[in-house]
Amino acid sequence: MLHFECDYLEGAHPAVLEALLQTNMEKMPGYGNDASCSRAKEKIRRLCDADQADIHFLSGGTQTNAVVIQALLKPWEGVLCASCGHINTHEAGAVEAGGHKVLPLPHTFGKLNPEDAEQYLKSFFQDENRSHMVHPGMIYLTHPTEFGALYTANELIRFSEICRRYHLFLYLDGARLGYGLASPETDVTLPLLARTCDAFYIGGTKVGALLGEAVVFPDPMLAPHFFTFVKQQGALLAKGRILGIQFDTLFTDDLYFRISRSAIRMAERLKEGLRQKGYRFYYASPTNQQFLIVENNRLKELGETVSYSYWEPFDDEHTIIRLATSWATSEKEVEQLLELL
Amino acid sequence: MLHFECDYLEGAHPAVLEALLQTNMEKMPGYGNDASCSRAKEKIRRLCDADQADIHFLSGGTQTNAVVIQALLKPWEGVLCASCGHINTHEAGAVEAGGHKVLPLPHTFGKLNPEDAEQYLKSFFQDENRSHMVHPGMIYLTHPTEFGALYTANELIRFSEICRRYHLFLYLDGARLGYGLASPETDVTLPLLARTCDAFYIGGTKVGALLGEAVVFPDPMLAPHFFTFVKQQGALLAKGRILGIQFDTLFTDDLYFRISRSAIRMAERLKEGLRQKGYRFYYASPTNQQFLIVENNRLKELGETVSYSYWEPFDDEHTIIRLATSWATSEKEVEQLLELL
Amino acid sequence: MLHFECDYLEGAHPAVLEALLQTNMEKMPGYGNDASCSRAKEKIRRLCDADQADIHFLSGGTQTNAVVIQALLKPWEGVLCASCGHINTHEAGAVEAGGHKVLPLPHTFGKLNPEDAEQYLKSFFQDENRSHMVHPGMIYLTHPTEFGALYTANELIRFSEICRRYHLFLYLDGARLGYGLASPETDVTLPLLARTCDAFYIGGTKVGALLGEAVVFPDPMLAPHFFTFVKQQGALLAKGRILGIQFDTLFTDDLYFRISRSAIRMAERLKEGLRQKGYRFYYASPTNQQFLIVENNRLKELGETVSYSYWEPFDDEHTIIRLATSWATSEKEVEQLLELL
Amino acid sequence: MLHFECDYLEGAHPAVLEALLQTNMEKMPGYGNDASCSRAKEKIRRLCDADQADIHFLSGGTQTNAVVIQALLKPWEGVLCASCGHINTHEAGAVEAGGHKVLPLPHTFGKLNPEDAEQYLKSFFQDENRSHMVHPGMIYLTHPTEFGALYTANELIRFSEICRRYHLFLYLDGARLGYGLASPETDVTLPLLARTCDAFYIGGTKVGALLGEAVVFPDPMLAPHFFTFVKQQGALLAKGRILGIQFDTLFTDDLYFRISRSAIRMAERLKEGLRQKGYRFYYASPTNQQFLIVENNRLKELGETVSYSYWEPFDDEHTIIRLATSWATSEKEVEQLLELL
Repeated sequence: MLHFECDYLEGAHPAVLEALLQTNMEKMPGYGNDASCSRAKEKIRRLCDADQADIHFLSGGTQTNAVVIQALLKPWEGVLCASCGHINTHEAGAVEAGGHKVLPLPHTFGKLNPEDAEQYLKSFFQDENRSHMVHPGMIYLTHPTEFGALYTANELIRFSEICRRYHLFLYLDGARLGYGLASPETDVTLPLLARTCDAFYIGGTKVGALLGEAVVFPDPMLAPHFFTFVKQQGALLAKGRILGIQFDTLFTDDLYFRISRSAIRMAERLKEGLRQKGYRFYYASPTNQQFLIVENNRLKELGETVSYSYWEPFDDEHTIIRLATSWATSEKEVEQLLELL
Repeated sequence: MLHFECDYLEGAHPAVLEALLQTNMEKMPGYGNDASCSRAKEKIRRLCDADQADIHFLSGGTQTNAVVIQALLKPWEGVLCASCGHINTHEAGAVEAGGHKVLPLPHTFGKLNPEDAEQYLKSFFQDENRSHMVHPGMIYLTHPTEFGALYTANELIRFSEICRRYHLFLYLDGARLGYGLASPETDVTLPLLARTCDAFYIGGTKVGALLGEAVVFPDPMLAPHFFTFVKQQGALLAKGRILGIQFDTLFTDDLYFRISRSAIRMAERLKEGLRQKGYRFYYASPTNQQFLIVENNRLKELGETVSYSYWEPFDDEHTIIRLATSWATSEKEVEQLLELL
Repeated sequence: MLHFECDYLEGAHPAVLEALLQTNMEKMPGYGNDASCSRAKEKIRRLCDADQADIHFLSGGTQTNAVVIQALLKPWEGVLCASCGHINTHEAGAVEAGGHKVLPLPHTFGKLNPEDAEQYLKSFFQDENRSHMVHPGMIYLTHPTEFGALYTANELIRFSEICRRYHLFLYLDGARLGYGLASPETDVTLPLLARTCDAFYIGGTKVGALLGEAVVFPDPMLAPHFFTFVKQQGALLAKGRILGIQFDTLFTDDLYFRISRSAIRMAERLKEGLRQKGYRFYYASPTNQQFLIVENNRLKELGETVSYSYWEPFDDEHTIIRLATSWATSEKEVEQLLELL
Repeated sequence: MLHFECDYLEGAHPAVLEALLQTNMEKMPGYGNDASCSRAKEKIRRLCDADQADIHFLSGGTQTNAVVIQALLKPWEGVLCASCGHINTHEAGAVEAGGHKVLPLPHTFGKLNPEDAEQYLKSFFQDENRSHMVHPGMIYLTHPTEFGALYTANELIRFSEICRRYHLFLYLDGARLGYGLASPETDVTLPLLARTCDAFYIGGTKVGALLGEAVVFPDPMLAPHFFTFVKQQGALLAKGRILGIQFDTLFTDDLYFRISRSAIRMAERLKEGLRQKGYRFYYASPTNQQFLIVENNRLKELGETVSYSYWEPFDDEHTIIRLATSWATSEKEVEQLLELL
């Protein structure tokens, strides 16, 4: 069976695991107060060109989204996001469990349109009944989106301007950020994110780590007592080192970017190969998730040799399936897949 | 200035205020443990043909919705409602503040379609990822809806069947229930509500009371320790008598229904008069809220003599406005309005 | 049966009810945007010598405490209070339901000692593990306390200084504030409260109103969007007028203070009469709640003619009972009670 | 520097890390649906003699406590615990953030007395005002306690009976459970826990794992949809395998118990050595945490060579410090410590 159903099928990149092994019996202080966490944070600050940034390591995406959103919003505020946004669909209501309404807007391949967001805000602030309504307090973006799409630098700058004008926070969910940054089609960089976003996270779980997401607050005054809030939300690991060591390794010798580029090369090879074979794609995804249109009557047979993600119906006779590469995908696997399809 | 902008412009029906006055210096136990509360509950049980029903008096609609929904749902459950439903739009995120996602569905004049609800539930229970999603735990209906529309008895029975089949609660927000029950076009009765709904409330604030909503749980085992939960939610009045006395009065000598019928007669007269004058309605509302289509260039002038509710644009040249009658609307006011328009 | 068990046995002071009656059929805007609310707020501002103060009317004490505390605290903050404080004992966990820990401290007749509070804060800020602990974010006082005791002006100034130094809010629960201000033994005034507290409320429910508490934020910038938060918490009345009219009346012609003084005179007469008869008091309460020590074997007989509150055991043979006067207590009732005891 | 300040100074037991290494590139389904999780659960069921038990793997102690307590309690319920209980002191208010009051009771070296708990419950259920109070819904125990103390089997049976009688849940926090089960002084076993508790967790973080706690619900019907709730609370790892593989390894060839016994042997050796040298202990702790009484004027010097935990003052001239052994403590380290002290 060939596995292309998602990008978290394996453990960690071998270098990451090796680092855990090498440091295993060293005695380190708990709760992230160890030297590896400090080193990892320093490296991230440098990469983001944000030397004052406050960095925190959390365990997973849903946790990170819930904790950051709750920490930044006031009780009467909600968060604008694409209707297909992860927080609106597949986080079991984590944002609402924290007391905040998710305010869904239309999207294109997971991308929110800045004009739609601004129109929403204009309407809200003109609405005579707005004091009876949830106040929009944040714009939430995923980059890459759930469909693998990417914002342009200009779009992020535009969102940032809108957020400044209307006093909202801009927060970017980078569960797959590495694959976004490694795409040949992007002009978005970590320093740009640090300049445009109030908070964002650099995903580790899907990009080479066993677990872990690095939250970046470019303005260190933004989330006072965030450590205590993380603890209260059950999101603080006693052995914080296991996140620090992993991110320290991922940001040594360009590892995070090298393995991200590898995943993108595999996705490009897959895309090219499938196109040559006459396959159609739902759209030209620039990252590690590819959305293929397959005839319904081929799905069952396909499922016997390839593990893919069912996405949604395309039309009566076709279905969209998702194939994902990752840092762990080998050329051999891609070639085997191309032979099979 | 003629006032038709809403149905809570005055204090209470004079008989209600008179009852408060008559009993004012009587010493009564607090927190709803007084005889007037007991009498009011007993009358409601009889009207609902539900002699075991558990009844609680709360202060307002948003409070009632939030408390009932929180009391019934599990933390991982959300509530299905029309996208225009009051809990989804004008309660400042009270349901989410209690931890639950509102799951909006399309509507027709505020009415949820049973087929849409069932389709949502079918899809949910077939979704392989549903354990990562908010579980639908309740259907929320408003009756009359925000547009004044009414469900039929058959529709409510249908919703009830769907809720039984999929193990959801059916909850009906009756902020304007009196005006619904008094409509000549309805076949819905209190006993029908008690048979079909797991919980509903009989609105007092908009139907003759100073404040107050009567929550009915036909099955008294459904919400154990609801009293304590009401207290915790800040929704318990020390002088519970002021709700008991009001509902006791409203359900004496048919008062609640008499004043509701009066509001409906006024709405019917208004509708008829306006039709004769050539006005168009957004739709034929059967209750006390009427939705008139007015040319945009007449709005300003109209606003100088009539206080109405802006609803939404109809087309580029027309706007929908809402005119509401209530128990307090006099024939004279309606005739004056007809003259003006 | 003579009733002295609490101070909310009747409806409202007749003048309050009369005002509701006089204005009943006037059409007023909803949600507290009416002229009576404005007038009441203006009067309170003047009485507090705080012309910028932000005033809000809520329905009851538990609701007011929960809403104010939640609005002011950050998610990781808790509230210091006397272990017998109402929020810690008889509000069904409303503060915790809003996410905040109540941090109880010892008390004397319900009074928190400023030194105890300061010692707690000193210890907390020296504790190496404090980032794993709930941060104290507020001091909550009741005035009069649950035992009827009163803080001195100097004590409130002291609490205020402590709160400034450690960046906490000072919040005072004035459910029975009228009876505190009317005591001959107090030097506390409304302007002093406005100078020392970040928020406090002037209780109406127990001092002449049907329902209603007036929250005062001397600094109007302290609780932005408080209106929306009140709405979200289900604490906003559609007919806000019923609170505005009541407070407008209570603060006209000194009514609130006159009726409070009457309750205090009745309590003083009761205290004096009982002392003459040889009764012992738990302590010399300066307000409307009196705590009498009664032999256990007299309790049953007493309960047949007098309705009192059981408080707690005094020793093996004696029990403390509470007798409360109120604005509604007549001299005749007090004399009858003195005859009976 | 010798490190005895806590029991989470290192990474994982080498065998655990080796297992992560061996399986690293195997492709496994996410969210705990992999074979290693199944194997680990099956082993735990067997060890607990509870073949129907529902098992879930979470990341840390605070998270586990918060999620389990919230999943089991109703909104109006609180949790009884020792005043020094971890949930009451060092979890930053996580239980209250979930809406529940912690109800503290006195303790002896961290142990709650069953009689105190029963007395609390008796008083509560006799209290006329209990419907205005937080309902006790759970007893929370730590085993070993924060002081390293252990309940006897009889005490746990007693707590279980009390919980049955008063309809509370019994929940045991086993962050250091291995060290409790390995103590020569205990008669508590996993099957006993499964018979007496409604829920408990077997701590991994402090007993050989990188991270991870295994929650056991002996009755699989107790927490329906717990998976979804875990997801909502941000406590579900995408790569659930990293918990499954660790627990699978810890419960293979008795590893969890062997390494726990090693920690206890080291603690016993330390205790014996220190006694011979004339040291006094705060009390005779039977587990891996030892509480030593040290003269204040020796603390500074001691701190230069030994890293210990400051606990609390013993008297004016002495301080209690904590020394903790763990699975990773070597005989050599203990002998070095004994030489130094």
